[in-house]
Amino acid sequence: MEGTGIPMSEKAGAADPESFVELHSGDVCCPRGFLAAGVHCGIKRKRPDLAVVASEVSSTAAAMFTRNRIKAAPVLYSMDVAAGGHAQAVVVNSGNANACTGAPGLENAREMAALTARNLGMSPETVLVASTGIIGAPLNMQAIRDGIPAAVQALERSGEAASRAILTTDRFPKTCAATVSVGGGRITIGGMAKGAGMIHPRLATTLCFLTTDAYVPAPALRSALREAVASSFNSITVDGDTSTNDAIFLLANGSSGPPLLTDNKELRRFTAGLTRVTQELARMVVRDGEGASRIAEITVAEAASAEEARRAAFRIANSLLVKTALHGGEPNWGRIMAALGSAGVEVREERIAIRLGNVIVVENGIGVLGTWDRAAEALIGTEVCVKVNLGIGGGNATVWTCDLSEEYVRINGSYAT
Amino acid sequence: MEGTGIPMSEKAGAADPESFVELHSGDVCCPRGFLAAGVHCGIKRKRPDLAVVASEVSSTAAAMFTRNRIKAAPVLYSMDVAAGGHAQAVVVNSGNANACTGAPGLENAREMAALTARNLGMSPETVLVASTGIIGAPLNMQAIRDGIPAAVQALERSGEAASRAILTTDRFPKTCAATVSVGGGRITIGGMAKGAGMIHPRLATTLCFLTTDAYVPAPALRSALREAVASSFNSITVDGDTSTNDAIFLLANGSSGPPLLTDNKELRRFTAGLTRVTQELARMVVRDGEGASRIAEITVAEAASAEEARRAAFRIANSLLVKTALHGGEPNWGRIMAALGSAGVEVREERIAIRLGNVIVVENGIGVLGTWDRAAEALIGTEVCVKVNLGIGGGNATVWTCDLSEEYVRINGSYAT
Repeated sequence: MEGTGIPMSEKAGAADPESFVELHSGDVCCPRGFLAAGVHCGIKRKRPDLAVVASEVSSTAAAMFTRNRIKAAPVLYSMDVAAGGHAQAVVVNSGNANACTGAPGLENAREMAALTARNLGMSPETVLVASTGIIGAPLNMQAIRDGIPAAVQALERSGEAASRAILTTDRFPKTCAATVSVGGGRITIGGMAKGAGMIHPRLATTLCFLTTDAYVPAPALRSALREAVASSFNSITVDGDTSTNDAIFLLANGSSGPPLLTDNKELRRFTAGLTRVTQELARMVVRDGEGASRIAEITVAEAASAEEARRAAFRIANSLLVKTALHGGEPNWGRIMAALGSAGVEVREERIAIRLGNVIVVENGIGVLGTWDRAAEALIGTEVCVKVNLGIGGGNATVWTCDLSEEYVRINGSYAT
Repeated sequence: MEGTGIPMSEKAGAADPESFVELHSGDVCCPRGFLAAGVHCGIKRKRPDLAVVASEVSSTAAAMFTRNRIKAAPVLYSMDVAAGGHAQAVVVNSGNANACTGAPGLENAREMAALTARNLGMSPETVLVASTGIIGAPLNMQAIRDGIPAAVQALERSGEAASRAILTTDRFPKTCAATVSVGGGRITIGGMAKGAGMIHPRLATTLCFLTTDAYVPAPALRSALREAVASSFNSITVDGDTSTNDAIFLLANGSSGPPLLTDNKELRRFTAGLTRVTQELARMVVRDGEGASRIAEITVAEAASAEEARRAAFRIANSLLVKTALHGGEPNWGRIMAALGSAGVEVREERIAIRLGNVIVVENGIGVLGTWDRAAEALIGTEVCVKVNLGIGGGNATVWTCDLSEEYVRINGSYAT
């Protein structure tokens, strides 16, 4: 598969075309020097709702945050921490987003960091904070004050419990690890994420926590994260709604011992491994989109620019009509044409080609007769490929989306019943 | 109700606050000098699928078309006709959009105009053409060649049959008329529209046909239409998908006899009447959105500009999470906050206020405690008001949307079963 996409047929753990990366989808082992824990503190009724991830030694850090202009308190707090380029621990609660909570909310985020730092024997400005859940409700701080010491007590070398404690309406935990050969040794990158479904009363948002035992200076770590996220978390959509709480943290503690990642080749290898981990996690998020039964990889090629390709791909990926057609497994390519024409990008109708799976359904802007049934077959299954060629320039982009089902409406329309 | 909105409580036919306009919702009478017909020609299995609207005398014309860059053949054809400022008849088929059909499609649109003109004894360049239905399938021209003479034979002084022949998946026909006192006399404006649901295989689009017996010169007619559509058809959304076929035609034949609408006051009165008719029709379209059980009027006030208010209102109106909450009748205002923050407009969280019905649920960016149950009550019923105040500037906008239901997904995901 060309372009920015990774093959949909590729299975977890398969040998990477870049042989220096080995991917372990579902792996919960922490990279060397990292510990994690997940406990139930009482924000949710029963399920685990508080996680701590910590490095035994000091580490550099990079972070990316939601671009929503309404930012939750933990986002505002952690932006400050991350700006310094160093962090040694992460504390996360699920079940409450601590968003739209004003000054008391910010004070609560600060207290979460301070409590975690005190229990870990660190300084407060090295602790990142994240929250996910309902917007606007005050945080149950008593539960958190009880939970943080318990979580620190429970720290272990597995991310399993932590990966469950950050979930909201997810159907399964999302973890992944990769080992990368760099500088004559091997480093490990581990990650966990939560689903992108947004559901009241546990209004979930995307969170992703990454750790590595590589030593990467903060500026290089930041650019590696930006590059990895561009083709993973920033290339997915479930419902087109941007949350107030999105946060991705990456901690690098250098415990694996190989030489510093300073030359360009080593950093490229690290970034390639990081990209693989974040793509795998991002795809898990789409696969677990609320009510989703199908994931679609949408590639737009030969747009006027990469930015236009991306805009067109997202317009298709967020079209309700395309998403419902995907759900029903119907090759209604006219809906893709209509989405392309309203994406605000340069299109020349007579140059457009569309492929569903391996079936070319549109050529020169006109439908290829007699392809409906074969195209419908291409839409069966849990992974679907849509390729659009605009025939204009050199811009390519790939994004991932899921179908829109009745179940999505039920989940998001009637939590109380 | 302030701003560009019209009161949701206002009933059809009620006295207008501007007493020179009298609105008759559901009226199918043609303005003086106009005739209409709707017949079954065979594009659809059974239901009427071909309509003709014609003026007995020459008339000026104004038109507005989809901004989708992929334009259907009848749109391309009619843009040329409308540019001249004169048209005397409209021919419309439903069941097939004649879009993405290349040169043969354009030839078919041209033939539809020519056949209609010949049967009416007019010149072809005075006939506007519109189509709605599935994208990409060739038009059944034999059916249309048989249908046009039959429709011309059936012309009558009622728009009833025509208003049914332009429908696709609509649950009810959408018609409205208004009489306006101008220049010492009374003129009439009549209109019909079809629903905005887009469903395969009858991929419906918005079409609206307006007639008036006022005499309005073409340039004035154009600006009146633009103004009316801005606060009606351009202020609604069902699913955020822009069709390839949207078209609105307005014919003015001057048969009502009062003095020409030349001075500004008369033209303002005419525009006010036209605005009322198009708003009523546009609201009918939203009310009949696929699977919709509820219409919501969303007003954003005190934005940095009217354009920003409009963008914020549409962001809320197209949010799947807001639309599913509306469907479930749940006052999840956090979803409105998240939508506002991602609308790309200036917001200051601490100034935002949100009202659902008459219940203020957010003040100074923070939730008002204890309002959930009362706000939930405000969401019961078929018409709901959402008001957002950004507290920044003087920009206001109102848009209309409908809820998103399981039925929408069923309709659009599984036509074949």
